[in-house]
Amino acid sequence: MKNFRTVELSPIPLYTQVKENLRDSILDGSYPAHAKLPAESELSTIFGVSRITVRQALNDLQKEGVIFKIPGKGTFVAKPKAFQQLTQLEGFGEAMSRMGYEIYNQVISHKIIAAPPHVAQQLKLPAGADVAEIKRVRHLNREPVSLEVTYLAPDIGERLLREDLASRDIFLILENDYGITLGHADLQVDAMLADDTLAHALRVEQGSAVLRIERLTHRADGAPLDFEYLYFRGDAFQYRLQIARRP
Amino acid sequence: MKNFRTVELSPIPLYTQVKENLRDSILDGSYPAHAKLPAESELSTIFGVSRITVRQALNDLQKEGVIFKIPGKGTFVAKPKAFQQLTQLEGFGEAMSRMGYEIYNQVISHKIIAAPPHVAQQLKLPAGADVAEIKRVRHLNREPVSLEVTYLAPDIGERLLREDLASRDIFLILENDYGITLGHADLQVDAMLADDTLAHALRVEQGSAVLRIERLTHRADGAPLDFEYLYFRGDAFQYRLQIARRP
Repeated sequence: MKNFRTVELSPIPLYTQVKENLRDSILDGSYPAHAKLPAESELSTIFGVSRITVRQALNDLQKEGVIFKIPGKGTFVAKPKAFQQLTQLEGFGEAMSRMGYEIYNQVISHKIIAAPPHVAQQLKLPAGADVAEIKRVRHLNREPVSLEVTYLAPDIGERLLREDLASRDIFLILENDYGITLGHADLQVDAMLADDTLAHALRVEQGSAVLRIERLTHRADGAPLDFEYLYFRGDAFQYRLQIARRP
Repeated sequence: MKNFRTVELSPIPLYTQVKENLRDSILDGSYPAHAKLPAESELSTIFGVSRITVRQALNDLQKEGVIFKIPGKGTFVAKPKAFQQLTQLEGFGEAMSRMGYEIYNQVISHKIIAAPPHVAQQLKLPAGADVAEIKRVRHLNREPVSLEVTYLAPDIGERLLREDLASRDIFLILENDYGITLGHADLQVDAMLADDTLAHALRVEQGSAVLRIERLTHRADGAPLDFEYLYFRGDAFQYRLQIARRP
């Protein structure tokens, strides 16, 4: 049995105290990744609180992505999240393979469609013009981490049909094979809930937290090249970046 | 009655087609912010699909934050999200007031506590050392948008008790009043679900999408100064940034 710090009396709600204590014990390594937490009844005894209070603390930690439950098996500590540094524009594969992850991209679909209005606007195409749409599920160490929906001009998209998109980043193919120099990307970052499509692609429950990115990548000359929606599992991934007070 | 583009036959599921059509009609301005969408039965007639299909499309758009439902009233188009540019390190108030928003900060608590392990580690304090904790709900045009939990050295935290935190950013007080020059900040960005505390503070339902940021701000000399958890409403806010391929 691990030792938890004694809960001090304070006006903080009991379940919050239990939650903070458990979180600290996970962050300081007392409970490492994949460790099983004591059962609710045990935690109730350890903290001297009701099982309802324990359950509320565990539910909150699950919402945060710190723990996960397996029905009939118990409650376990989640892995630390994989992260990508936003210091420079990089494909997911480039960034993550340098950190030692095994990368695999499952290509779900790759076709020419009529550009949806928002996509046409971003890529400066006429509304309804042909555009290539590529959907991939990105896997880290064989687990799905993101769904990426990529839109490109149809000629580039058709050429990409011949490439190994299962193991190579589109950015690297564009640069190294096609001789297109990438410039900057504009990103929009927010949070949403997994709908049915995302739940299925990322193997999470509907209503799970998803980090969503819209990314418009430009050529070095500033022309829009590649518009994407990136949907990351909230419990498995984070972005990291550094910002200066005075650039 | 607005006109929707005709749904073309394709292997894309019907509810996805309805969803994309509705999203396009919202993005292109056919349905502006706060507009009421036709009732499920009307949409069912317009698209020639079942009400179950319509409902699934609406549920997905709600998960995305594009629409919201008011029980007994109907389904409405959400406002475009407020956004903050991450070009340089700025407080929320600084950034958002420049864009014309009215800012108000509700100070929920402001006290000296024993530093939780993760906070102590970030601020390079001994475990359990005193630290100031300030909780504020940030409002944009009188609506709650984020909960910010700020940790600072106790001397600075006590001094801040005398300041007008309801209308001023901590960053600006540190720089302009205290003469502390800010350097860079390290950010970690991910997504989580609103727990009870966040749901209450941000006036959203439990289980709503939340954009979470951990931010460690340093002095110009590189010493850690201010560690924060920022929790933004996923349906109301996004970060924007630009990254270059070659910095």
